[in-house]
Amino acid sequence: MKILVTGASGFAGSHLIEALLAKGHSDVYGTAFGKPDFIASLLQEDHIINVNLTDKTAVRTVLENIKPDWIFHLASFAFVGESFQKGEELLINNLGLQFSILEGLREIVPQAKTLIIGSAEEYGLSEDGELPMSESHPFRPINPYSVSKLAQDMLAYAYAVSYKLNIIRVRPFNHIGERQSPEFAVSAFAKQIAMIEKGKQAELHVGDLSGIRDFTDVKDMVHAYILLMEKGNGGDVYNVGTGVGISMTEVLQKLVGMSKAVVKVVKDESRLRPLDIKEIVADNRKIRELGWNPTIPLEHTLQRVLEYWRNI
Amino acid sequence: MKILVTGASGFAGSHLIEALLAKGHSDVYGTAFGKPDFIASLLQEDHIINVNLTDKTAVRTVLENIKPDWIFHLASFAFVGESFQKGEELLINNLGLQFSILEGLREIVPQAKTLIIGSAEEYGLSEDGELPMSESHPFRPINPYSVSKLAQDMLAYAYAVSYKLNIIRVRPFNHIGERQSPEFAVSAFAKQIAMIEKGKQAELHVGDLSGIRDFTDVKDMVHAYILLMEKGNGGDVYNVGTGVGISMTEVLQKLVGMSKAVVKVVKDESRLRPLDIKEIVADNRKIRELGWNPTIPLEHTLQRVLEYWRNI
Repeated sequence: MKILVTGASGFAGSHLIEALLAKGHSDVYGTAFGKPDFIASLLQEDHIINVNLTDKTAVRTVLENIKPDWIFHLASFAFVGESFQKGEELLINNLGLQFSILEGLREIVPQAKTLIIGSAEEYGLSEDGELPMSESHPFRPINPYSVSKLAQDMLAYAYAVSYKLNIIRVRPFNHIGERQSPEFAVSAFAKQIAMIEKGKQAELHVGDLSGIRDFTDVKDMVHAYILLMEKGNGGDVYNVGTGVGISMTEVLQKLVGMSKAVVKVVKDESRLRPLDIKEIVADNRKIRELGWNPTIPLEHTLQRVLEYWRNI
Repeated sequence: MKILVTGASGFAGSHLIEALLAKGHSDVYGTAFGKPDFIASLLQEDHIINVNLTDKTAVRTVLENIKPDWIFHLASFAFVGESFQKGEELLINNLGLQFSILEGLREIVPQAKTLIIGSAEEYGLSEDGELPMSESHPFRPINPYSVSKLAQDMLAYAYAVSYKLNIIRVRPFNHIGERQSPEFAVSAFAKQIAMIEKGKQAELHVGDLSGIRDFTDVKDMVHAYILLMEKGNGGDVYNVGTGVGISMTEVLQKLVGMSKAVVKVVKDESRLRPLDIKEIVADNRKIRELGWNPTIPLEHTLQRVLEYWRNI
């Protein structure tokens, strides 16, 4: 059984590679864009493929060479914060790589089981009575990044129904862990605390903390991805999140409470977005029915993330 | 009051220009991409702007020069039939021009009232009990064209809520009339019948005729657009369609019945798509509440379309 993970050098990708190897999968290939970093310690050199996934010909070659049975398609450009400024580039790149994978699937490996990664950000704003967010929550995306994830999701749907491809779609809610970019809030907090502890930074800068989010440990998240590949229904879509909302203020308090230093928190106007979503919490009944449960308490994850930034 | 119509040289655009002038609006500008054709007989030369709307700088200049109060943003690349083959190009162009308009709105004319055109194709497949399609029908688009319209729609939503722009979105169902491209079924039928009548073609070639569609006369459609600009709620989205479904077989029979020649109908495999939507019918309660009603019977529209192709 051959497995291809796109975006393997990314945050979730690297944890997925670890989990697949730990489960005994030996023939695991990963695509990286630029330097592979962490996964170079996990995969043999000939199983790491440096490729720009927006390049259709290159993607064809990868699929022809590997002929994967499973494809975890994690690659995507992220960075919600910059999303209006670089919105168009983001959208075009995210759709470009999606077309490469879907066209490659259709032409070269139409039998491959494929997991396509969307985002809870596709749902966006909620009205009264719509929380927690089920898979049929209306789409009200509030920035180009969210629109790009929605368009990727819907394009995968279109290919799946039109060409009868074996595609499962997943909409992960926030997930956190070591190796996540400090463009994301929890990593940004932990990194700054580590810097303050080392005396390299005076204050902790934050954006809007009023939002409520649903945080899953990345290790639980990638187990959901593997479970979906094993047991998910082709053509279907699944939320993955704990189902428990927590305010960003509380997450910050927990992290600050773990700090060895006195941390002064300062609101930074430049970190504010035009609009923030008040609450994003998963209705996770569908993935729970397949047997998934979050296993790692938030405090353990936060402690690990803080340790990661202390040691970097 | 200054009005800008993008895609003015297109099918709906040219009818909208006619309707706006007939209603007494005198300061109407239209963008054209390439030769303006029909609207050159309606608008003064300095009110027709030849511009590629994917060019952000050019769009900025247009908005700075005109400073429109109303913008009917009709421009979009269409051709559903080719949509998988040219899917990526279509999506990138449709998103490129959408970013140009939305960024231009945000930066230059944030007060302008703007109508953004989506499509009933965004809804796509229906399940039992979901017809007719209301504005909250789930999105199940089946081809890249439909995904491009959904992404345009959602991007407009994101800009509207994030930057408090005065945007109304509309999702027109099928509309037909003179000057529509023969890439679309009704024009294709009428054009072929006219050719058969002139002895220039032997048989009428058709694709899948099993689908049920909701056909509005383009003249009724553009009246809905103007009504939405006058009375629609900023931030809201409206379906426009008659609410009456008719099978493509019946549409073809009506057209063939109007022919002066004996018409032999032949199924053409090359006109079949990977998947067709069985039924697309509008729930039009929202637009009716604003006072819109379709006024032109389908038979009159079909007769006009046939006459158009006879005289071309």
